[in-house]
Amino acid sequence: MELWYTEDQNNILRFSYRVNQSLHVEKTPFQHLAVLDTVGFGRMLVLDGIVQTTVWDEFIYHEMIAHVPLNTHPNPKKVLIIGGGDGGTAREVVRHPRVEKAVMVEIDERVVAAAREYLPELSVELDNPKLDLRFTDGIKHVAASRNEYDVVIIDSTDPVGPAVGLFSREFYSQVYQALKEDGLFVAQTESPLFNTDVLARICKDVGAIFPVVRTYLACVPSYPGGLWSFTLGSKKYDPLEVKPEIIPALGYRYYNLQVHRAAFALPQFLKEALGQG
Amino acid sequence: MELWYTEDQNNILRFSYRVNQSLHVEKTPFQHLAVLDTVGFGRMLVLDGIVQTTVWDEFIYHEMIAHVPLNTHPNPKKVLIIGGGDGGTAREVVRHPRVEKAVMVEIDERVVAAAREYLPELSVELDNPKLDLRFTDGIKHVAASRNEYDVVIIDSTDPVGPAVGLFSREFYSQVYQALKEDGLFVAQTESPLFNTDVLARICKDVGAIFPVVRTYLACVPSYPGGLWSFTLGSKKYDPLEVKPEIIPALGYRYYNLQVHRAAFALPQFLKEALGQG
Repeated sequence: MELWYTEDQNNILRFSYRVNQSLHVEKTPFQHLAVLDTVGFGRMLVLDGIVQTTVWDEFIYHEMIAHVPLNTHPNPKKVLIIGGGDGGTAREVVRHPRVEKAVMVEIDERVVAAAREYLPELSVELDNPKLDLRFTDGIKHVAASRNEYDVVIIDSTDPVGPAVGLFSREFYSQVYQALKEDGLFVAQTESPLFNTDVLARICKDVGAIFPVVRTYLACVPSYPGGLWSFTLGSKKYDPLEVKPEIIPALGYRYYNLQVHRAAFALPQFLKEALGQG
Repeated sequence: MELWYTEDQNNILRFSYRVNQSLHVEKTPFQHLAVLDTVGFGRMLVLDGIVQTTVWDEFIYHEMIAHVPLNTHPNPKKVLIIGGGDGGTAREVVRHPRVEKAVMVEIDERVVAAAREYLPELSVELDNPKLDLRFTDGIKHVAASRNEYDVVIIDSTDPVGPAVGLFSREFYSQVYQALKEDGLFVAQTESPLFNTDVLARICKDVGAIFPVVRTYLACVPSYPGGLWSFTLGSKKYDPLEVKPEIIPALGYRYYNLQVHRAAFALPQFLKEALGQG
């Protein structure tokens, strides 16, 4: 008997992963949660039927969402992570030597519980003394913060379900206020190929609030089409002017100085869609 | 009734595309050939059960395999294309203003016939007067050529079946001899994530023959994992030293100067696998 898990993309494309066994399935107060042990990609976290991460390729997404903003800011002492319940982003943030404190705000405690039990490679630093883990609404936390964070990382699910408010212009304004005067934030902003309009709208919204707005890309095999976008809004520092001497040697698997710079080179169709053509 | 086409990857991963209709299926003397009309990606060419290209995303692969080498060479007058039966690479090559003649050597005439009939967006330039289209074995053609080409582009299928000889060290030596004294070549060299060993072996082989060897990447959604590699071997010109002023304005959809440079930034795991870490 073979077990397969299939992710459906709008009934036009499906990704199927052969599964050794289903380790955990539950309906949380916020979403459907599953952890599968796949043959090709190790353990996999699935929320509302969408693959969030796999042990095999998670390093790409987590290094790129964490180290690009952390190394853009010369002194990212205090960091806020919104979402990121699997722990992968927190793991990358707390190992950065200039981070003194990271607050992680995850709305769904059950995701963290599942990660602690089934995804030790990702959740390994969730008890790190630098990390303050809170289970509450990231939007409310941000709205209650003023001039507090050097870096905010929005590691959310897609803009449907619990994460939809994290993609709004109003939320980006609240993030602006939560940041210190030289702060910056980054958010995962979907596929530049399948969700070009979403990305273009986000860039416009962020650009209306932050003086510096930059989109960068990485190829994440377990996301549809591979190509994935992140959008960075900054009050002062430009990620294109990253200083090589401040990048700590952390044994990265994907990230390095060249990758940091190259990630901001956008394909021509995307430059044009974002009004940079 | 819904029709789906499924590509299987070693029985651990499957990509399924919803299909409006199957336009053409045949067994050629060299391989199994199908053209499908998909719902999400337009028409799709499938050889031996592997998706080769789709009308939706072919511009990424074809621009990157053609314009990176063509714009690395200051005067790519005479170009050889090995394979590329769908016509996409030839289309990009002949529209480059400094290309005077392109010889395209495709082993399987039936692929070209199918592309002419079903993939007009790709085959549109196959009757261009700059193009000399021959149906023969690329290995034999290269072995019979001496000091003849400025640029050789190896646009092959995977290193199984008819293309296997195009991935051998012996073949790269023959390509060296077929090139002029300042010539260069590029080949598609598989997934850096799934076929890291193949890529590392190719780089080593090319590096033993050519003074300049560089690997570059692009994200091709219809290839497994998205991330895809190309390897460039050059007798003289270094693609990292591309001169902005020689890049013709061709209305690219993916390629531009920044993308050209950024494509050579390799993720850390790949630098290490290629001995560049």
